[in-house]
Amino acid sequence: MSGDLVLYDVYSKLDPPQWSSNALRTRLALNFLQLPFDTVFLSYPDIEGHLSKLGLAPNSPPPYEARPRYTLPVIKDGDKFVSGSFEIALYLARTYAARGTRTALFPHNTVPLARLVADYLNDNVLSHARKIVLPRVPTWLDERGAAYFRTTRRKWLGVPLEEYYSGLSEQAKIRMDVLRGLDGISAMLRDHPEGPFLQGEECGYADLQILAVMAWIKQGDPDTWNTALESPEMRALWDAGKAWLA
Amino acid sequence: MSGDLVLYDVYSKLDPPQWSSNALRTRLALNFLQLPFDTVFLSYPDIEGHLSKLGLAPNSPPPYEARPRYTLPVIKDGDKFVSGSFEIALYLARTYAARGTRTALFPHNTVPLARLVADYLNDNVLSHARKIVLPRVPTWLDERGAAYFRTTRRKWLGVPLEEYYSGLSEQAKIRMDVLRGLDGISAMLRDHPEGPFLQGEECGYADLQILAVMAWIKQGDPDTWNTALESPEMRALWDAGKAWLA
Repeated sequence: MSGDLVLYDVYSKLDPPQWSSNALRTRLALNFLQLPFDTVFLSYPDIEGHLSKLGLAPNSPPPYEARPRYTLPVIKDGDKFVSGSFEIALYLARTYAARGTRTALFPHNTVPLARLVADYLNDNVLSHARKIVLPRVPTWLDERGAAYFRTTRRKWLGVPLEEYYSGLSEQAKIRMDVLRGLDGISAMLRDHPEGPFLQGEECGYADLQILAVMAWIKQGDPDTWNTALESPEMRALWDAGKAWLA
Repeated sequence: MSGDLVLYDVYSKLDPPQWSSNALRTRLALNFLQLPFDTVFLSYPDIEGHLSKLGLAPNSPPPYEARPRYTLPVIKDGDKFVSGSFEIALYLARTYAARGTRTALFPHNTVPLARLVADYLNDNVLSHARKIVLPRVPTWLDERGAAYFRTTRRKWLGVPLEEYYSGLSEQAKIRMDVLRGLDGISAMLRDHPEGPFLQGEECGYADLQILAVMAWIKQGDPDTWNTALESPEMRALWDAGKAWLA
């Protein structure tokens, strides 16, 4: 595919390489809107150098000792760069509606729905799932990326990633927390049983955010993912949207 | 007004008497849908006796030593009773859409939006505002209602209502928390600047829930309400919806 649009994503050795739940949100949005794009995969230690050379300003707030100056996803649309999955979604919705794209990323003015779903996922799903998934991330990365990930996360957490969450009984509790959060999503999907999406037959960015998180859990904790997919609503959403992950 | 619909609401000496944020949600929904209804105002100690005599089963889960068996709002629609503001909203949307009412309470399948806004309001606004508003509630009630309110809340909180939250500096912090929660609502309203509602020009139950909470804050903490209304988005929402509070 070739077009003016480029998605900067985090490199991994996986096939396909995409795994970051934030970058997956953008990938899903681009595919959902049927916008052709190229992907540039960057290993963690190369992100800052590559983006600063392109002229992009840091998109992460200081202080930079503890946090990276640049985070992905970033898109390049012609000469314009946009950072941050939600900001990118707003940009794509606005820009491509103006250029005549008919599919709405936020159908019937539902940006607030997408914002609240993002908060819901963060508070009720990601905050728990992270504890199981993050220690597994280095095994997916190239050697330099894995070393960078271990070093930075050790600095942020105060202990090695692998030691931060331990104990099988704790893992069982964490999985229960993740599934409880996803149950809330299934309940909302049941509100409009005529379709697989939160707004029924119409898919929007709120749904794409759920799909991105589910794909990340699928990679990082297949057991939890399998259990979650026993919900008929979650299964229907996944089946309806998984093609946009490609 | 007369019709088959009756709203059971909490009595007060205020003019107009309605003040409960939960019952206001139902009142707003009925008025928004242009459904004529009568109100029966019940003083707190009369709620259980009145509703059980009408044949309604308790709508609150046991144990009943600590919590009331019946909570308001309740509506009666012909022979049918429905309890709980969100359940009532779902019932009204389903029933009156089937009977040909054109106005949608959840426009474009946005029940999930309304659920998430309810959670947002509870976690970020009501949980804080309650600390300032609840001690003032007994002054609005009739003597028996006030005594009931003081006794039950003392039992639940472990100390008299008036002693539970004290100190001017704590109140200032609580007000800041309330305003921070409402700022999040204003930010969501800004997402669709073409209209005063969360979905732009279309009003739905998500907006009515905000209006009900705002009306309750107006009664219970006018200073905070005045400050909150300095947000142009909140002011526009209030002006667009306040007529449905009647």
